[in-house]
This record gives sequence, C-alpha cells and structure tokens, in this order.
Amino acid sequence: MNVKNKEPRSKKEILTATLEMLESNSYSSLTIEAIAAQAGVGKTTIYRWWENKARLVLDAFLMTVESEFEFDSNKSIQDNFKQQLEALARILNSKIGKSTLTIVTESEEIAKDFYVLFLMTKRNEAKQLLQAAIDMGELKPAINLDITLDLLYGPIYFQILIYKQIPDADYINDLLIHVLEGITVAN
Amino acid sequence: MNVKNKEPRSKKEILTATLEMLESNSYSSLTIEAIAAQAGVGKTTIYRWWENKARLVLDAFLMTVESEFEFDSNKSIQDNFKQQLEALARILNSKIGKSTLTIVTESEEIAKDFYVLFLMTKRNEAKQLLQAAIDMGELKPAINLDITLDLLYGPIYFQILIYKQIPDADYINDLLIHVLEGITVAN
Repeated sequence: MNVKNKEPRSKKEILTATLEMLESNSYSSLTIEAIAAQAGVGKTTIYRWWENKARLVLDAFLMTVESEFEFDSNKSIQDNFKQQLEALARILNSKIGKSTLTIVTESEEIAKDFYVLFLMTKRNEAKQLLQAAIDMGELKPAINLDITLDLLYGPIYFQILIYKQIPDADYINDLLIHVLEGITVAN
Repeated sequence: MNVKNKEPRSKKEILTATLEMLESNSYSSLTIEAIAAQAGVGKTTIYRWWENKARLVLDAFLMTVESEFEFDSNKSIQDNFKQQLEALARILNSKIGKSTLTIVTESEEIAKDFYVLFLMTKRNEAKQLLQAAIDMGELKPAINLDITLDLLYGPIYFQILIYKQIPDADYINDLLIHVLEGITVAN
C-alpha cells in the first residue's frame, strides 16, 4: 500500500465511499453505480482501477487494516496475540470484514489476493514473533509455526464464519492458554 | 433423520439427484428445474418439501454425513480425532461439502440449521469423548471443551475456506499433537 501517495486523490475517495456504502448496504446489494455516485466520480473511473466489485471491496478492506495488527516486541507473546486476535475479531465482524469474508469464501481468485496482500505479510510477522520466543527458550523449538498460527487464527474465523459469533476477550484469553499449555496431563 | 423411512421414496431420490447434479454444476448454477428433471419429479414436488435450493442442499449434505463421524470408545482420543478430522476434511472438500460451506457462510438462517442439525450433535458426542478422557486422568480437568473442539475443528474449516487447501493426514497429525501437548516449554 506504499504506492498510495502517488495515486490520484479520487482513488482513496472511492475506497472511502465503498466503506460508507457498506455500512448501510449488504455486499450483494452494493452496486458500482451507487459507489460512483457516493464518491462523485463516473463509473468508468472506478473500472479504470478495479476489474469488479469484489476487487474494489478487497482494496477497501486492505486500506482499513493498514494500521491494525502491529506487533510490539516489548510485550509478551501472550499479550501480543491477545491484542492481535481481538483486533482480528473486531475487523472480521465489521461490515467491510464480513463482506471480505464473503468474497474470499466464494472466489478462489480473491482468496489468493487476500492471502498474498494480507495474510502472508501478517503471518510472516507473527512467525518472527514465535521464532523470537523459541530463541528465548519460551516456546518449544520443534513446534510447527504454520500450525501454531492456524490454531490461533483458525478458531476466530471459524466462530465468525460458521457460528456467526464474535469471539470476546474471555474466549481469546482461554484460546491462548489452551494453545500455549496444551490439554494433556503432563507425565 | 430417523423419520426418513416414513417419507416417500421420491424424497430420497430428489436428494440423490441433488448430489448428482452438484458433481458437474456449481452451487450457483444449480437449478430446481434441473434437479426435478434429474429426479423425474415435478418442481412442485420439490417445493412441497424444501423452501428453496439452499435448504435442499443442506438436507443432501445431512444425508451424506449420516454414516460418517462415528466415535469408537475403544480407540485412543488421538486416534478418534485423527479419524474424525480426516473424515471432516474429506467431506468439506467434496462438491456437496463446498456447496454447504458456501450457503452456511452466506446465510445466518442456514448456519443456524447447520449448527442444530449437524454441528451440535457431533460436538456433543465429541465432548463426551473429551470428558471420558478427563475422567480417566488423561486430559486436564480444567480445559474448556468448546475451545478444545474449536482448536481441533477451526483450523480445518480455516484451511478449506480461506486457504482453499485440504488438510492432509500429516497436517491433522501435527495439529493434534500441538493441541494435546501445547507449545510452551514446561517450567
């Protein structure tokens, strides 16, 4: 997203208009015409930058999350993930988050972009945090970092997509403790 | 599903026709007309039992999973969940599984039925298995059973819905070990 400053001002206005329209419209009822009217641009301006509605919504999501999900190396691994998972639950439960999940689950192409433009970067940062904790002797050296992250993030997506529930702070806290400590009685 | 034997033979034929049609059609391109033609019944017969396409597909899913997901009390908890998660990954990755996930993520109403008619029963069985392992001193008594099940099932749904990947036997094995043993170095 570091090219944004070089882009015309109207690009950001179109993304903002998309977010505004999603506040009162479902993804399926959202139209490019309505976004264009809201942003005060023509439809052709929108189609110059975005192939279709799904790609426009994905970009609006990326703009929204740009400033979220920062890790803080001074905090414990538990506190870092607590903050991350709470931010994730909040954003996935917002209008733009729900619309993004809809298009990601429906389209392999959008899912790929979601992975490359959002998940991969965030997961790499999270892996560095896990690796630092391994190096400090806090976490087991043999753990699989991808599986560890699926254990932390998977249940959040699962709760929202399948249970239609927003994981709260207590849930997230319990989740972290279970992942960190395991469920088996130590021998 | 125990009322099935009392239902007309054509009900099962319609569900079977739905499964057959989904083998070569996407959910969105599937029509009630085509299913009716495949089953050799009229459209009105279908609408007598199912309000819409989504409910028909959910019922076809429930018919498919009826014989899957049995727990075996003679097996270890690890082996039981290994078998369960492998069966889950297989079914969610099938045509009927993918279609069901699509309608569950799209509709709160279908998600509720999916929970009541499928997830809740399966989770209650799984909780009994966890409780038995707690009673035998194998699992920690203080664990939260719902969170434990989200840790096991959440990553499977996450991999399929967001990563568009099918978790294989190695992944499931590693997942189980991480959940059972945790990731923290014991003090």
